[in-house]
Amino acid sequence: MGAGLSLSGNSSLSGSKMPVVQITRLVHFSAAHRLYRPDWSEERNTQVFGDCANPNWHGHNYELEVTVEGSVEAETGFVMDLSQLKALLDQRVVSEVDHKNLNLEVSWLQGTNPSTENVAVGIWEQIVGDLPEGVRLTKVLLRETPRNWVEYTGG
Amino acid sequence: MGAGLSLSGNSSLSGSKMPVVQITRLVHFSAAHRLYRPDWSEERNTQVFGDCANPNWHGHNYELEVTVEGSVEAETGFVMDLSQLKALLDQRVVSEVDHKNLNLEVSWLQGTNPSTENVAVGIWEQIVGDLPEGVRLTKVLLRETPRNWVEYTGG
Amino acid sequence: MGAGLSLSGNSSLSGSKMPVVQITRLVHFSAAHRLYRPDWSEERNTQVFGDCANPNWHGHNYELEVTVEGSVEAETGFVMDLSQLKALLDQRVVSEVDHKNLNLEVSWLQGTNPSTENVAVGIWEQIVGDLPEGVRLTKVLLRETPRNWVEYTGG
Amino acid sequence: MGAGLSLSGNSSLSGSKMPVVQITRLVHFSAAHRLYRPDWSEERNTQVFGDCANPNWHGHNYELEVTVEGSVEAETGFVMDLSQLKALLDQRVVSEVDHKNLNLEVSWLQGTNPSTENVAVGIWEQIVGDLPEGVRLTKVLLRETPRNWVEYTGG
Amino acid sequence: MGAGLSLSGNSSLSGSKMPVVQITRLVHFSAAHRLYRPDWSEERNTQVFGDCANPNWHGHNYELEVTVEGSVEAETGFVMDLSQLKALLDQRVVSEVDHKNLNLEVSWLQGTNPSTENVAVGIWEQIVGDLPEGVRLTKVLLRETPRNWVEYTGG
Amino acid sequence: MGAGLSLSGNSSLSGSKMPVVQITRLVHFSAAHRLYRPDWSEERNTQVFGDCANPNWHGHNYELEVTVEGSVEAETGFVMDLSQLKALLDQRVVSEVDHKNLNLEVSWLQGTNPSTENVAVGIWEQIVGDLPEGVRLTKVLLRETPRNWVEYTGG
Repeated sequence: MGAGLSLSGNSSLSGSKMPVVQITRLVHFSAAHRLYRPDWSEERNTQVFGDCANPNWHGHNYELEVTVEGSVEAETGFVMDLSQLKALLDQRVVSEVDHKNLNLEVSWLQGTNPSTENVAVGIWEQIVGDLPEGVRLTKVLLRETPRNWVEYTGG
Repeated sequence: MGAGLSLSGNSSLSGSKMPVVQITRLVHFSAAHRLYRPDWSEERNTQVFGDCANPNWHGHNYELEVTVEGSVEAETGFVMDLSQLKALLDQRVVSEVDHKNLNLEVSWLQGTNPSTENVAVGIWEQIVGDLPEGVRLTKVLLRETPRNWVEYTGG
Repeated sequence: MGAGLSLSGNSSLSGSKMPVVQITRLVHFSAAHRLYRPDWSEERNTQVFGDCANPNWHGHNYELEVTVEGSVEAETGFVMDLSQLKALLDQRVVSEVDHKNLNLEVSWLQGTNPSTENVAVGIWEQIVGDLPEGVRLTKVLLRETPRNWVEYTGG
Repeated sequence: MGAGLSLSGNSSLSGSKMPVVQITRLVHFSAAHRLYRPDWSEERNTQVFGDCANPNWHGHNYELEVTVEGSVEAETGFVMDLSQLKALLDQRVVSEVDHKNLNLEVSWLQGTNPSTENVAVGIWEQIVGDLPEGVRLTKVLLRETPRNWVEYTGG
Repeated sequence: MGAGLSLSGNSSLSGSKMPVVQITRLVHFSAAHRLYRPDWSEERNTQVFGDCANPNWHGHNYELEVTVEGSVEAETGFVMDLSQLKALLDQRVVSEVDHKNLNLEVSWLQGTNPSTENVAVGIWEQIVGDLPEGVRLTKVLLRETPRNWVEYTGG
Repeated sequence: MGAGLSLSGNSSLSGSKMPVVQITRLVHFSAAHRLYRPDWSEERNTQVFGDCANPNWHGHNYELEVTVEGSVEAETGFVMDLSQLKALLDQRVVSEVDHKNLNLEVSWLQGTNPSTENVAVGIWEQIVGDLPEGVRLTKVLLRETPRNWVEYTGG
């Protein structure tokens, strides 16, 4: 039996190193936004952002995949409890953005243009400080449509 | 060889009946909306429609499947040319709703609450009169999210 | 504007007929089962049901699509409130089968072989009596895997 | 317990009617084709069929969903054994078209233009006569791409 | 023409370096399991693992993506023959876990709690030693549901 | 507010570093091919490539995901304009391969065996030199079917 698979849970005694694994949880939310800089004219916003600058808004079903990494705990076989990760995402992200306007209603996106890039970076900041000890946030992947998405790894 | 498969194209001479087939084209659009009746108070709108009544809007990536039915043409093997169906959907539907606000900007949805049901019925009305002779619109299926959708068959 | 799209909500006064629309909600659950008749020998169970008869069980992520049909309400634009449909499915179906053993733990499947067909019929019976007035259950579609599924329409 | 759920298997004795259910099996194949009538000039083929008429061929990953309907057997809980349906599809369809040229190599498509419509009708003819007694073929759904598909129900 | 695309197959003579590419094969299996430590009481198992600890089991349709990396062979244009990779996965993994109980019937998972993490690590160990020379296993991605998955890269 | 989220657009003045993000665009094309070396006999081609060597061709719906990486521009919130990336992919890749024969009609694949590996490397070469300054191509992922794909990262 390889390292990290034992139920004995005494890896610290035996000195064996537990495998490092990444786990991902997918959640979704629906929101309105527009690409827009208030310090630009409507004309320039439209020139740069096209129909994404529509002053009457448009919206998306966003799919969010959050990946964390850590050693598998010998006791549980978990990197972390997925229900705990889901609860964190619901509390810090989904409840803040679902059925909301990303330009107007999300405090941690204020002052930004809610491009997929900026929303992904904002989500990273919302959760990176609240993971259990020993678990690292490694990726936020945010799909704006099934045909385009962004990934942020904290760099 | 069964009816409708012949390249000879003389089905009317031979009296054989061509098979009736349904063809479907999928298109997508992203839009903002809210569920809302202007003749109700904000309180009542929220009570009935929940967070879908958010005055700051929210939005979706809609997936639209339009199905038409007709006899397979002996000459082409087509019920109708799919590029013609796609052009019709782009012109009569997608260009009207993509990156738009369904409550404010779509003439043929004015005076309605843009529930998925009402949008699907509206799309049906937009295209039912413009199909080639011998081709019938049989279904408009509109997905608001991957987890809920409506179908309208003209009834 | 066609029938059923009006916000005036006075369709009963005007005599106009509201359109009939089908709405579908997708939910999922994960369960264990085996195909097995207790009145047959293990040998015969294996002969008929193959590796689906494994006495140590196997399981699936089931995807359940429930479709109901009704007239669009002029007031709301809804056939029925989707959150109400989801609550019904959670209460009468998902809470009963998710992370359960379909052979041992589901009262309304007792005495049946939990084939996809039988589970779908059982789900139909669980919900058909609890829909709002004027709303009809029209289809239960149950996917056992992404490659095979059954549909029951009450026939 | 409702009709059709009993393990007793004596529905014929008790006179209870078993529920009628539809089951679907998904299979896939990859093939080359062109839309082309040999009795037309290349110019006319290109005019009517566009880049689908490319003399050097193009191809698709086809997804095929075959639906059959029948009463649930009281003994097994099956409409029919899915592995039997899969074997039929493999033998009569997939082995004939997978990694093949639909214009040149499929005997039951000879003399036809391999539009999705015609291929679906051809598949129907390949399997409709080989189903177990009491099981009816109700639909052949053939996806040429994730964005367009046809359905044939034998009409 | 860039490196690695030549049919001449003499890259070793010419000294040109072939590109390094990753190839992935997706397979699936359905299995039962429970999250459970035999050295804990049922109460503690339920406290830690929730309804995943159900003594009557539950199950999933697992989707397994295995990625290997190597230089493209100049002769074939392959990193390795995909049918060979599929055969390895069928023999060493799928035939061992499909329609099985992960707690009871899989020798290389004995003594572990079959969390997605531990199953992924176990699958890695099953195949890492059997790849062709010059081909490295780089990732095992195991989806327990469409909403949660783990990745193991051997670390 | 973290780095890179400011609308002030003066990151160069303030010295703050903008986050580095990856963005991906998905496009698709349908093409014919065969795995085949002209300098081998048909027998050897079939022996090595199996039914992929069929002289009458077969084909696929290819899904292509192209990922680029760069700092988020403070002004726009973009790594690069996605419509510009899509235009590049359409011009340099999709228009060259869609509804084409990969063995016969694609100049930049001439002299190669069009394995998924070689096509992915060829696509990389087609676009790597045409990205905006400061934007790096990081991955070409090409799916030949939903069950197998390759990734090339330029190594």
